[in-house]
Amino acid sequence: MKKFSHLDTTGAATMVDVGAKPPQLRRAVATGELRCAPATIRLLKKQALPKGDVLACARLAGIMAAKKTADLIPLCHPLALDKVSVDFTIKADRILITAEARLTGKTGVEMEALTAVSVAALTLYDMMKAVDKQMVIGEVRVSLKEKK
Amino acid sequence: MKKFSHLDTTGAATMVDVGAKPPQLRRAVATGELRCAPATIRLLKKQALPKGDVLACARLAGIMAAKKTADLIPLCHPLALDKVSVDFTIKADRILITAEARLTGKTGVEMEALTAVSVAALTLYDMMKAVDKQMVIGEVRVSLKEKK
Amino acid sequence: MKKFSHLDTTGAATMVDVGAKPPQLRRAVATGELRCAPATIRLLKKQALPKGDVLACARLAGIMAAKKTADLIPLCHPLALDKVSVDFTIKADRILITAEARLTGKTGVEMEALTAVSVAALTLYDMMKAVDKQMVIGEVRVSLKEKK
Amino acid sequence: MKKFSHLDTTGAATMVDVGAKPPQLRRAVATGELRCAPATIRLLKKQALPKGDVLACARLAGIMAAKKTADLIPLCHPLALDKVSVDFTIKADRILITAEARLTGKTGVEMEALTAVSVAALTLYDMMKAVDKQMVIGEVRVSLKEKK
Amino acid sequence: MKKFSHLDTTGAATMVDVGAKPPQLRRAVATGELRCAPATIRLLKKQALPKGDVLACARLAGIMAAKKTADLIPLCHPLALDKVSVDFTIKADRILITAEARLTGKTGVEMEALTAVSVAALTLYDMMKAVDKQMVIGEVRVSLKEKK
Amino acid sequence: MKKFSHLDTTGAATMVDVGAKPPQLRRAVATGELRCAPATIRLLKKQALPKGDVLACARLAGIMAAKKTADLIPLCHPLALDKVSVDFTIKADRILITAEARLTGKTGVEMEALTAVSVAALTLYDMMKAVDKQMVIGEVRVSLKEKK
Repeated sequence: MKKFSHLDTTGAATMVDVGAKPPQLRRAVATGELRCAPATIRLLKKQALPKGDVLACARLAGIMAAKKTADLIPLCHPLALDKVSVDFTIKADRILITAEARLTGKTGVEMEALTAVSVAALTLYDMMKAVDKQMVIGEVRVSLKEKK
Repeated sequence: MKKFSHLDTTGAATMVDVGAKPPQLRRAVATGELRCAPATIRLLKKQALPKGDVLACARLAGIMAAKKTADLIPLCHPLALDKVSVDFTIKADRILITAEARLTGKTGVEMEALTAVSVAALTLYDMMKAVDKQMVIGEVRVSLKEKK
Repeated sequence: MKKFSHLDTTGAATMVDVGAKPPQLRRAVATGELRCAPATIRLLKKQALPKGDVLACARLAGIMAAKKTADLIPLCHPLALDKVSVDFTIKADRILITAEARLTGKTGVEMEALTAVSVAALTLYDMMKAVDKQMVIGEVRVSLKEKK
Repeated sequence: MKKFSHLDTTGAATMVDVGAKPPQLRRAVATGELRCAPATIRLLKKQALPKGDVLACARLAGIMAAKKTADLIPLCHPLALDKVSVDFTIKADRILITAEARLTGKTGVEMEALTAVSVAALTLYDMMKAVDKQMVIGEVRVSLKEKK
Repeated sequence: MKKFSHLDTTGAATMVDVGAKPPQLRRAVATGELRCAPATIRLLKKQALPKGDVLACARLAGIMAAKKTADLIPLCHPLALDKVSVDFTIKADRILITAEARLTGKTGVEMEALTAVSVAALTLYDMMKAVDKQMVIGEVRVSLKEKK
Repeated sequence: MKKFSHLDTTGAATMVDVGAKPPQLRRAVATGELRCAPATIRLLKKQALPKGDVLACARLAGIMAAKKTADLIPLCHPLALDKVSVDFTIKADRILITAEARLTGKTGVEMEALTAVSVAALTLYDMMKAVDKQMVIGEVRVSLKEKK
């Protein structure tokens, strides 16, 4: 039967032991979105994009959060990430967020990519909440996970 | 015209000055969900609930993350929160997450509640990803914001 | 019947709501000790005390840890401490540690004082472990807690 | 003569250079205890154990603290831990705490295990202090340290 | 005779007790500069300014660092800052950095402003070091400190 | 043409991918200074040096900050440093600061050395500002960077 990897035989929470795993090149991509009013998107394009600071802010917050994943998610391993990047696509009624994490190491990095997307979305929310009270963060998921 | 509160007149990112605001009792509630396979929910009920550690883990991670909001979201103010709580409702194909933050202070606490929901969801994802690769975090939004 | 303050009515972990408490001057003192071989104490006096760095290191680590209490103890409130101090008394076979924390705020600071003692003890342990493998940290307790 | 490893030839604090050490599988176990009134233990079994949140909370706090060891202890190296686990044994008048840390790396992990025990003990203290003001954290020591 | 405020009567490091101080509106401005080759400045204007990300990155890093001052400077008090801002002026052979911190509280905020300038300068250095190995951070000082 | 390594082809901020780089022994030394009044230096020698705590404090703050570099500088990689050290030379009107960082890894450590110097300087500033309001941090630069 399938088992939750972070519970030991007594059901208590534990970190998975990755000591016997070989280091491999690992990569994960996660995506998500912040849904908002079309008027908010128009304002973003007009006020914020010329200078770039709203997206730059959210991008950096996502990258920095990926580096804090093991500090936020109790049973995640601390990882020496090779690279993190965050990108945005602006649609008429939402901002799509994509984050990629790379590691040469023993464990997958989808939590790092998901954390980058989530915190980038929260930062967009924070910077745009003065003009839109109805935004929703959604569709946060892993779109690619690979190792070689 | 509406304006982004975190951009100054040149469009550069800045923290809003809350120095002139009076301290008030503030409260915010945020909600969200982790959608997963019904089989995952059945496993959660069977393996993890007797001990409570999956939900207990996500609850604590959410509470601790709320206290780190100003460390994660670049332009958020550091706040001395009065209280944070996180709760879960288990449905057939998803886990609903609710977080509440309270403050006696100068600025709203919806970002703290949203951060608690997001990190609780990420922690559930982390603890259940060994048995379900298709989970999605969604519908993260503010459901109540008040001050008095 | 007495109740655990950090469990809600369903038994789930929660932060105590301090919103209705008045800010008061609060003070707590905690003590503890690191027991070690007399030879270790003699070496400490000989090698390290002239420069002061072993004790200075442990003192600072304790002070800095007190400021991180809410980051370490899941249900502690973030506090704007007025003062933290850490002191040592060197005995023949142990180092006594005393820490004091002060706050103008809504909640007691004994956890901050206890955290300062514990991390000061761990730091002494770390700096002396090359010469003594049998050290024990003990008797960590609150010796005073008051408010006015 | 034995020397303190964290003091350089002038007596100043320094991190030990581990650059020339080979990575090895390292493991350390530390133990400690929280002494309390028998009535507190009875209450713990009655109120908190059904839900598990007091112990689950302390377990997670210990695991998360182990990952922060280099942030707490000034001269510890940042380490990519393979695994951390924390367990409890409930006695009539105390809770015994055991923590294990594992690493594939260049330096021992006893400080990580000791930190996990100490912060788990502090968290138990925090969650039980409303019903017992006389608790004592003690006997925190390394019980096993090995590499291969 | 003048005294170092962070040393107690025995010369040991300690936090100043601010418990008896009244909360006041406090403001501090610090300045500094990153000196670099004129060719680096030309490249900055050409490659980076259209998108804004080099300066946006340094601005955010400075703001976020100000919020971490008490975590970086051992004897600083944790503060609930009202506002932090960071600005840049680009000269032919240097980038001037100005940071302002505001607080309603018991202690001055010049360390927060200085920390913001320093970390903004370090971030500029990091992002420009691929094209210029001779940069120097200098003239970091407090230019204004006031309370009312 | 030379390029900023932390901007991608669209000009957005990104971490450099170090996945393909071989781990090497890397070392960097950075230097800087805190300029102050000669009277301040005399006071430092008289009041603070016997106990060592001003310099010990700044040394530890610098070492600890080096370990936080990836948390402070948005696009820096998290690194498992082999060693960090910080030293001081006291001149008539300034304190010279030197920091060294060592790593077996994929990326240079000059940012870690620069961060150690900067935070050591800020800590000296903090501890001496009660007696000297005119201090200046300057000449922070990399003096050596090598790998083998």
